[in-house]
Amino acid sequence: MKGWQFTETDTPLKLVEQADPTPKPDEVILALKASGLCHTDVGILHDPSWAPMVESPVIIGHETAGVVTQVGADVTNVKVGDRVAVSPQNPETGKTIGAFRDGGYADVLAVPAVQLVPLPQDVSFIQGAAATDAGMSAYHPLFVVGQAKKGMKVGIIGIGGLGQFATNMAVIAGCDVYVADTKASSRDWAMQIGVTAAYENISDLAQHHLNLIVDFAGFDTTTNEAIKAVKPGGTVVLVGMGILHSTIDTGALIFNNIKLIGNSGGTPADIAKVLDFFETGKMHPMLETTSYDQIPEGLVRVQNGDVKGRLIATRD
Amino acid sequence: MKGWQFTETDTPLKLVEQADPTPKPDEVILALKASGLCHTDVGILHDPSWAPMVESPVIIGHETAGVVTQVGADVTNVKVGDRVAVSPQNPETGKTIGAFRDGGYADVLAVPAVQLVPLPQDVSFIQGAAATDAGMSAYHPLFVVGQAKKGMKVGIIGIGGLGQFATNMAVIAGCDVYVADTKASSRDWAMQIGVTAAYENISDLAQHHLNLIVDFAGFDTTTNEAIKAVKPGGTVVLVGMGILHSTIDTGALIFNNIKLIGNSGGTPADIAKVLDFFETGKMHPMLETTSYDQIPEGLVRVQNGDVKGRLIATRD
Repeated sequence: MKGWQFTETDTPLKLVEQADPTPKPDEVILALKASGLCHTDVGILHDPSWAPMVESPVIIGHETAGVVTQVGADVTNVKVGDRVAVSPQNPETGKTIGAFRDGGYADVLAVPAVQLVPLPQDVSFIQGAAATDAGMSAYHPLFVVGQAKKGMKVGIIGIGGLGQFATNMAVIAGCDVYVADTKASSRDWAMQIGVTAAYENISDLAQHHLNLIVDFAGFDTTTNEAIKAVKPGGTVVLVGMGILHSTIDTGALIFNNIKLIGNSGGTPADIAKVLDFFETGKMHPMLETTSYDQIPEGLVRVQNGDVKGRLIATRD
Repeated sequence: MKGWQFTETDTPLKLVEQADPTPKPDEVILALKASGLCHTDVGILHDPSWAPMVESPVIIGHETAGVVTQVGADVTNVKVGDRVAVSPQNPETGKTIGAFRDGGYADVLAVPAVQLVPLPQDVSFIQGAAATDAGMSAYHPLFVVGQAKKGMKVGIIGIGGLGQFATNMAVIAGCDVYVADTKASSRDWAMQIGVTAAYENISDLAQHHLNLIVDFAGFDTTTNEAIKAVKPGGTVVLVGMGILHSTIDTGALIFNNIKLIGNSGGTPADIAKVLDFFETGKMHPMLETTSYDQIPEGLVRVQNGDVKGRLIATRD
């Protein structure tokens, strides 16, 4: 098998060849078909503060889908030939692929079967991969933490890899959706898929008395502006890690009884819900594709903000 | 009637004499017996950012208790002679006494009957006054927002006017309580009333894996330290307005799925619960008394941090 291995901060990924893995009793082996390129991997590559969260050397990539080629002795939930998406995190141990064990920037993956979610027939590997991290990490803050419901007034800040999923799912779920993004092309996309209004500035959201705002940017001021824009008693869920601190107006937080809730990750159940949204045929995320050979170059594009939506490596 | 009237920022309170009020149909007239001195009043006196929240000239003071002397035509919940505490805020209009209408630094008060809570026989006017703002503003974040329950591990930051109520009520309710305060005398008081441990530094709370921390200080770093000290998935409720901003570690908030919830105020139902705690005989808040004549001097003591617990003006 081949894969892109991370060794240490600011050192290029290395294409390594190693023996094909054999499954432990609770594991399966997958032939990978699609793997998403995530900002987190840019962080792992270049930001030393990620070092404690990675056991290197390790093949990175944590957003992937493929076909089951072998199953361990105790595996009962999938069989050889099944098309599956992979939940990045093991719900039992909390360990993440592409960080604490080899991940998705490879042709073959060994992974605990408990992390697998079946792909519906009409959902592609590319969509399935994108559903795992980008989709799950959008679904969980919006619907599980933020309790978004039909008719609720919802704001989305940052229409990137995650925010576009949240926006699309919120519209399909019947929420009244308002977005803020500095990119005109992202605002255009949002208007096309059915949001009520799209703004360049977060402060313009305030006039709509939103119950919930999810901040997928997390660039310090975005979070504070969300706190000031949400209606009294409302909730701001913070997902984006653009900058790892924010100076917030605690007077607004206190007087208006605002909830600010940090969220990372989600569950295999969330991924199944995202796949259900894909099955409706109404999901139109901006997805670009590249090849597994071009993953390092693709991560440079992610780093430079050159990707519209999500970039997925594929063999299809 | 006489009362201490606020006119504008940085202008001394003026002792005014005016005609006794007559009750509107939904109001009662009280002979006031005890009125608590609150940091908020120091803010009103000296901080221009409070100006939009006050309709001056107005007699300030929003934490009071007394005896009903007249009732309006439509009042049915109390009668002349009843001993009552006054909820600062009208639950129907949101208007607060001592800010949007005359308040408690006076001998007589006209107030909507809907804001009254009966005083149990064994609870004094001093305790009743303290229960209204300090008690309610401690009860609501701890038990309603924070959902504190018997056996829950709870942290309290700042054992001042509000924090001492929260600490005392949490202990009586059977929580496992840990406090942080820079004052040794406050820590000693906390240990005497039954907390498990009392620390000078908030970071020392982290070892106890607290489900909930309520920050009654709100001095920027206190909030961020609470976010880093609470256990993953835990809740920080922010009440204190020491400084009206805080730079928070959003990485900790996001990775550990922390909730930061701002809270101000509460309801008459909360005050009734605080009075129930007083009726147990197990409430021992640090309460100092002064006279109504000495309210301006008392507010200087509050401003200088010279008060242990809560300072209450009384006629008893």
